[in-house]
Amino acid sequence: MSDAVSPLAPKSYPQMPPIDGVRIATAEAGIKYKGRTDLLAMVFDEGTTVAGVFTKSKCPSAPVDFCRANLPGGSARILVVNSGNANAFTGKKGRETTEMTAVLASKAAGSSSKEVFLASTGVIGEPLDAKKFAHLLDDMVVRAEPGLWAEAGKAIMTTDTYPKYLTATCQIDGIDVTLNGIAKGAGMIAPDMATMLSFVATDAPIGARALQDLLSKGVGMTFNSVTVDSDTSTSDTLMLFATGAAEKRGAARIEDAEDPRLSNFRRALNKLLKALALQVVRDGEGARKQIGVTVTGAKNARSAKRVALSIANSPLVKTAVAGEDANWGRVVMAVGKAGEPADRDMLSIWFGDIRVAHAGERDPDYSEEATSSYMEGDEIDIRVDLGLGRGQATVWTCDLTKEYVAINGDYRS
Amino acid sequence: MSDAVSPLAPKSYPQMPPIDGVRIATAEAGIKYKGRTDLLAMVFDEGTTVAGVFTKSKCPSAPVDFCRANLPGGSARILVVNSGNANAFTGKKGRETTEMTAVLASKAAGSSSKEVFLASTGVIGEPLDAKKFAHLLDDMVVRAEPGLWAEAGKAIMTTDTYPKYLTATCQIDGIDVTLNGIAKGAGMIAPDMATMLSFVATDAPIGARALQDLLSKGVGMTFNSVTVDSDTSTSDTLMLFATGAAEKRGAARIEDAEDPRLSNFRRALNKLLKALALQVVRDGEGARKQIGVTVTGAKNARSAKRVALSIANSPLVKTAVAGEDANWGRVVMAVGKAGEPADRDMLSIWFGDIRVAHAGERDPDYSEEATSSYMEGDEIDIRVDLGLGRGQATVWTCDLTKEYVAINGDYRS
Repeated sequence: MSDAVSPLAPKSYPQMPPIDGVRIATAEAGIKYKGRTDLLAMVFDEGTTVAGVFTKSKCPSAPVDFCRANLPGGSARILVVNSGNANAFTGKKGRETTEMTAVLASKAAGSSSKEVFLASTGVIGEPLDAKKFAHLLDDMVVRAEPGLWAEAGKAIMTTDTYPKYLTATCQIDGIDVTLNGIAKGAGMIAPDMATMLSFVATDAPIGARALQDLLSKGVGMTFNSVTVDSDTSTSDTLMLFATGAAEKRGAARIEDAEDPRLSNFRRALNKLLKALALQVVRDGEGARKQIGVTVTGAKNARSAKRVALSIANSPLVKTAVAGEDANWGRVVMAVGKAGEPADRDMLSIWFGDIRVAHAGERDPDYSEEATSSYMEGDEIDIRVDLGLGRGQATVWTCDLTKEYVAINGDYRS
Repeated sequence: MSDAVSPLAPKSYPQMPPIDGVRIATAEAGIKYKGRTDLLAMVFDEGTTVAGVFTKSKCPSAPVDFCRANLPGGSARILVVNSGNANAFTGKKGRETTEMTAVLASKAAGSSSKEVFLASTGVIGEPLDAKKFAHLLDDMVVRAEPGLWAEAGKAIMTTDTYPKYLTATCQIDGIDVTLNGIAKGAGMIAPDMATMLSFVATDAPIGARALQDLLSKGVGMTFNSVTVDSDTSTSDTLMLFATGAAEKRGAARIEDAEDPRLSNFRRALNKLLKALALQVVRDGEGARKQIGVTVTGAKNARSAKRVALSIANSPLVKTAVAGEDANWGRVVMAVGKAGEPADRDMLSIWFGDIRVAHAGERDPDYSEEATSSYMEGDEIDIRVDLGLGRGQATVWTCDLTKEYVAINGDYRS
């Protein structure tokens, strides 16, 4: 964990309201960290539906395998998350740990082990001993309370320099519903998705299939559009829980994701996911600047996103931004290496509102001074128009600083 | 240019023999650098054949376009290379510069402009003024002499901390032939290929088509297997010139790349290309360690190379090596994100000869101490066996240090 808080940390935090049907407890299990919480239990009332999106890594962690197996049941009663150890690449021992945790968690919550969900984050390849924390679960379920969302955000941090939690409200059928979300992640962040854990809960009454559809669609332009270092974790997990408690207040249960009554909810969910994803980027290891990369004029949206990610993942572009250098030549390089349709002589490039290059060469009005001044800001927007079609995409990343190297050259030891 | 020479620089340099039919001159044109040479002319006798391999960037530099257009002629009389400015993304002005340079170079060499080859390396997007150097070419051709290979290597450097030149000999039909090569490159190095310029010349009598075949095949396991930062330049150029002068000494001219009399030459060429490529990696910006990544047991060779590059390009793997941390968990991550067939529970991983992971978990005999000691060396070999098939590949990279960020956060200004 880095000592210094990212300069891009939120200036203020929201007061987190409770979500009807969700209770939270945290504990100090001492898995790796000392003097801080590293265990989270989130307990859900009966009838809570669940959706999830996981890493596309071919070497996923044991908890990811575990969650994937339980997801088709569509029902959740308890979520257990630990920080400090990812329980990834731990072979048979890893599976034993998830199984033992699930048995004890389901006992504590009075549920089936099919309604347990697990996530672990931290070092890869070290066996995680369930005995370190499984005995704490009974007590955690007993003492869990609704208001502890900020504490939940803190317990799942690893190299994060600040906790990430947000809340949103919207209406379904004229009835207020609430969405609360927490996230963690700072490095090994890349689509799809990030060493990124995020858990969102709502009291909206939404069936599991509709919930999954909402989440799967929402992730594309949010969590799957951020990258810190192009490195995809084995543990990426984003889950959405719906307790349905708002039904008691008159919101009718919705089973179809295309139901027009969900339009407000969908918008609120996507906005929350994007805000959480940006909090992750802004805590990118060593980050000093947030970088937005927008590509327009691509053959199609998929092509635009690939070009945008090529720019956002380029070490040379990211170090240039760290050095406050509007080095659009490196942007051209990153467009060229993406392998997507592009015509050098059609390219235009902007930093903020300043067009620095046009029709394949430096903009005739290019001003080094104006651009340098723009580059001193802490939110840098790069826009590239390929001039070929109507495809567009935006992704977000952060600059690459010496601090990133320091953090990651010295993480495990 | 960085002041400090890479700790991985060669301990000694070879004495470069002349190549019959090649004369060399360098000059201080003051394109960007002061007090050093930045212009190279290599003059070839009539009958010299030529082969080339260029960047796959969709936004290639003007000189790359120019060389591609001349290559089918198969004949070369003069090569002109400048450092300090890449003449890339310079639009119409860039084409005018290559055209003007070609006209003056061909006049100086008494050749057709179809027999001129050009390369430029340095900043992208700044117009390159041919007037800065074109007037020097006449004199350079007059004073060019055979022995100046080391000087040639120096004139094309940009952020390189040491010049790169090597020589090799082999026999064709019992007659000695010589190969000399120079290279430059330190950052923006990735297949295919690198901000990498390399020029090799030989006195072997080989027809242009056979020469191209030899070069195209030779590049795969050499220059196209190295990466410094995954960033592919707009200017990558590798050319091979064959003067045929050895024909006078009795070596028969060879027109077919499959001719068995070429087997020694092919081996010598590939060895030279690999050695030059490794010199580029060892001068990777900020590099302190060379990293070899070998993947075995993949479904096929292509899959093996993609997994190897995923590991070699991972910032987290590269920073771990910089921190002398045998963090094989990050290697697992990089295998997983490559998107190629892999089964977590079949993976084995070695650092040097030390097996650190086996069958999807930490090796039972894993010794932190032995591994840490190995990681202190300056050549780190990482091997991953996927346990699926017989595909294998090796690629080379370097570690990612704070110095890389310093060099690239402060390059253009």
